[in-house]
Amino acid sequence: MELLIEKIKNEGTVLSSSVLKVDSFLNHQIDPRLMDEIGKEFAGRFAHSGITKILTIESSGIAPAVMTGLRLNVPVVFARKRKSLTLVNDLITASVYSFTKEENSEISVSSHYLSEDDRVLIIDDFLANGQAALGLAEIANKAKATVAGIGILIEKGFQDGGSTLREKGYRVESLAIISSLENGLVSFEQPTTETKVELTR
Amino acid sequence: MELLIEKIKNEGTVLSSSVLKVDSFLNHQIDPRLMDEIGKEFAGRFAHSGITKILTIESSGIAPAVMTGLRLNVPVVFARKRKSLTLVNDLITASVYSFTKEENSEISVSSHYLSEDDRVLIIDDFLANGQAALGLAEIANKAKATVAGIGILIEKGFQDGGSTLREKGYRVESLAIISSLENGLVSFEQPTTETKVELTR
Repeated sequence: MELLIEKIKNEGTVLSSSVLKVDSFLNHQIDPRLMDEIGKEFAGRFAHSGITKILTIESSGIAPAVMTGLRLNVPVVFARKRKSLTLVNDLITASVYSFTKEENSEISVSSHYLSEDDRVLIIDDFLANGQAALGLAEIANKAKATVAGIGILIEKGFQDGGSTLREKGYRVESLAIISSLENGLVSFEQPTTETKVELTR
Repeated sequence: MELLIEKIKNEGTVLSSSVLKVDSFLNHQIDPRLMDEIGKEFAGRFAHSGITKILTIESSGIAPAVMTGLRLNVPVVFARKRKSLTLVNDLITASVYSFTKEENSEISVSSHYLSEDDRVLIIDDFLANGQAALGLAEIANKAKATVAGIGILIEKGFQDGGSTLREKGYRVESLAIISSLENGLVSFEQPTTETKVELTR
């Protein structure tokens, strides 16, 4: 998605060979117009997937997920990283390992908001090792829902999350795929054939 | 706002005389269409306030804040409750006491995204004791920005946050004001004169 790639080029900061900071439009400050365009893009790519629910994780997934939900006219559920005081019963949980924080955390969703009839679109900001997406897919699977697709804003193509998810058979649509963050520079992959097909629909 | 009040009546659950659970459309599952309408409503109420930035707090404030930002065409910044790995320098912080959790927590915003030229609209999901809104206002004040208004989805009129903020001179616009949660029932306040004026603009 050209608009997102341009935004990353203009405002992204390479903190290390594996960490890209996009705090000015996604992870701390949010650009609502960009999120609206991202919502339209995901809604277009998954228009024929029969999506009934969007599943994301707090906090940075919420803005793009809600914009996508608006366009697809389906509710959004965000998994919580911490326990909520008013969300205590009937939780479906998954354990997610963070390579950057080097710790396991538990994410949870109320079983009230996912059912076996749901066709779920998972949305997240970054895809690196795939732990968050796998955790969300595990929660959907535990609810006997179908994971109809995974929409990612920024995939780190040089880490193995994307291939892990695709090898498991998930349809992963990434709006920007970064091939390298070496030497303080952001390089982007060309869209894959699969993505090209989707884009020309 | 009639749409929000109807949603609370139909889907809200009274957990105690002070706790209303609205997990089905705001705090866990999110209704994107409702958020869109809420964004339009806040944008209308604050259309002539010269807003340059929206300030909210993760996680439940993000969806209504982004929809409002889209309509007002301004960026959204969400304060973090936990420290981010990529957000470490130049933090403006405030201490927020949670009466429900009975603990202090620190919220933080990068100084990069608030300046003395900003006219800030604070958006949050609930207003009870006003601690979160006061913390956000403190952060805006530390950045020398102007707090041009506070937009709340659900105000607990029987707690003192609303009067505290209004006595400090802040313009508070609440889309639904609950007068009581006694006996498992939700009662709503009639809109104040001030709100009526705003609605007929």
